Amino acid sequence: MLYSIKAGGKRLRPILLMATADAFGAKPEKTMAVAAALEMIHTYSLIHDDLPAMDNDDLRRGKPTSHKQFDEATAILAGDALLTLSSQIITEDPTLTDAERVFLVRELSKASGARGMVEGQMQDMLSEDKAITLEQLEWIHTNKTGQLLKFAIVAGAYIGEGSPEQLADMTKMGEALGLIFQIQDDILDVTGDADKLGKPVGSDEGNHKSTYPQLLGLEGAKKQKDHYVELAQRTLLKVNISESVLSELIFHLSKRDH
Amino acid sequence: MLYSIKAGGKRLRPILLMATADAFGAKPEKTMAVAAALEMIHTYSLIHDDLPAMDNDDLRRGKPTSHKQFDEATAILAGDALLTLSSQIITEDPTLTDAERVFLVRELSKASGARGMVEGQMQDMLSEDKAITLEQLEWIHTNKTGQLLKFAIVAGAYIGEGSPEQLADMTKMGEALGLIFQIQDDILDVTGDADKLGKPVGSDEGNHKSTYPQLLGLEGAKKQKDHYVELAQRTLLKVNISESVLSELIFHLSKRDH
Repeated sequence: MLYSIKAGGKRLRPILLMATADAFGAKPEKTMAVAAALEMIHTYSLIHDDLPAMDNDDLRRGKPTSHKQFDEATAILAGDALLTLSSQIITEDPTLTDAERVFLVRELSKASGARGMVEGQMQDMLSEDKAITLEQLEWIHTNKTGQLLKFAIVAGAYIGEGSPEQLADMTKMGEALGLIFQIQDDILDVTGDADKLGKPVGSDEGNHKSTYPQLLGLEGAKKQKDHYVELAQRTLLKVNISESVLSELIFHLSKRDH
Repeated sequence: MLYSIKAGGKRLRPILLMATADAFGAKPEKTMAVAAALEMIHTYSLIHDDLPAMDNDDLRRGKPTSHKQFDEATAILAGDALLTLSSQIITEDPTLTDAERVFLVRELSKASGARGMVEGQMQDMLSEDKAITLEQLEWIHTNKTGQLLKFAIVAGAYIGEGSPEQLADMTKMGEALGLIFQIQDDILDVTGDADKLGKPVGSDEGNHKSTYPQLLGLEGAKKQKDHYVELAQRTLLKVNISESVLSELIFHLSKRDH
């Protein structure tokens, strides 16, 4: 568990959660357990996705994947235990009320389970080597990577005591953010610099994966991304948090080169 | 997910939970979500334990195991999704208060995680083909199978609004129950009837697994079991629930032939 958690990574999900909570004026200490739980879920999903039966990857963040460093059984159990611990630490956090703990465990479970991240992973596997439509592609990404990013945004706004209307707005913004992130990922696989990315470019084409540039062309993909960036910016203005670290972060993510 | 949940099995953990709650006078509907969550955790652990990287079993409850019926990736994801759903359904249950939801998710996570069931499974794998002491054997069983059985008892008493002292007593009873169950399992592997058990006898010896009969002799193992049965009965008397379905169930479990 510690090996994979300490392997690094961008910590994007916890940072987004904390930046959103900050924009809503929450006390930072109220975000800590949930931010850690979110990173545990992300990490467990990477450990299991890397297994030979799934993506069969030997390297992750420049280090041997869990099953390469230890063995497959250990990797499966480390993932199971991280997933289990994520619920535990939210329910144990003394800075949250019971109502907050229940909301956060419930929404995190929904985002990561059989109608969320796990379903996205399953559909992604089933669609490999198949021609899929733009609608199906967005549906896969909305679940596979989008749900945890959306949870980061919604959880931050909730901890910051956003109103029901603001939570609804931030939910839509979180969905847009997931798609911005994914489209830029696809674009970088075509135009990116392998050194900066730390992984080879062109691998989507090699893996016969459907991508935005493939379905819309490179310019079409950039336009689609700009559409979601605008949508996100409009929401931040509406909720009156356009002058925030969160706003800068979203702009940065849409232009990132790795 | 449904394939493995519907494959049957004794439903022992939900039944123990509901029998305990009943002995404490709880409304049955308050046990439903937690009982289902508990069976989901048990089922996910069987799906993952059956994988080629772990016990590599082809059959479970007379049917192909999940990875045989589908494939390994599907089995891993079905297990992950069942584990995730267990937290979700407890937090969504309308018959429980937020305080109850938090207590139950927290205790179930602790029982099934890195200091509970998952640790027991890990230690069990690490101790295969090794000579271990009785103390180490009890420690493995207390975690691997005992934690979920203990949770069933404690959760039932909690939903039935047992006092803190009663919960402490029932925790000890739950631990004893786990060991009763395991010792009888080991005894049946020596003296049992393969037809009634639905699995071959003598497999522990073949797998070089340490067992109670092996460490204490068959009579010693029976004595050890009787010791825990007495302890359980004393607790039921003390808590004043010795005239209950739970009491009959524990007696039955200690004498079961399959």
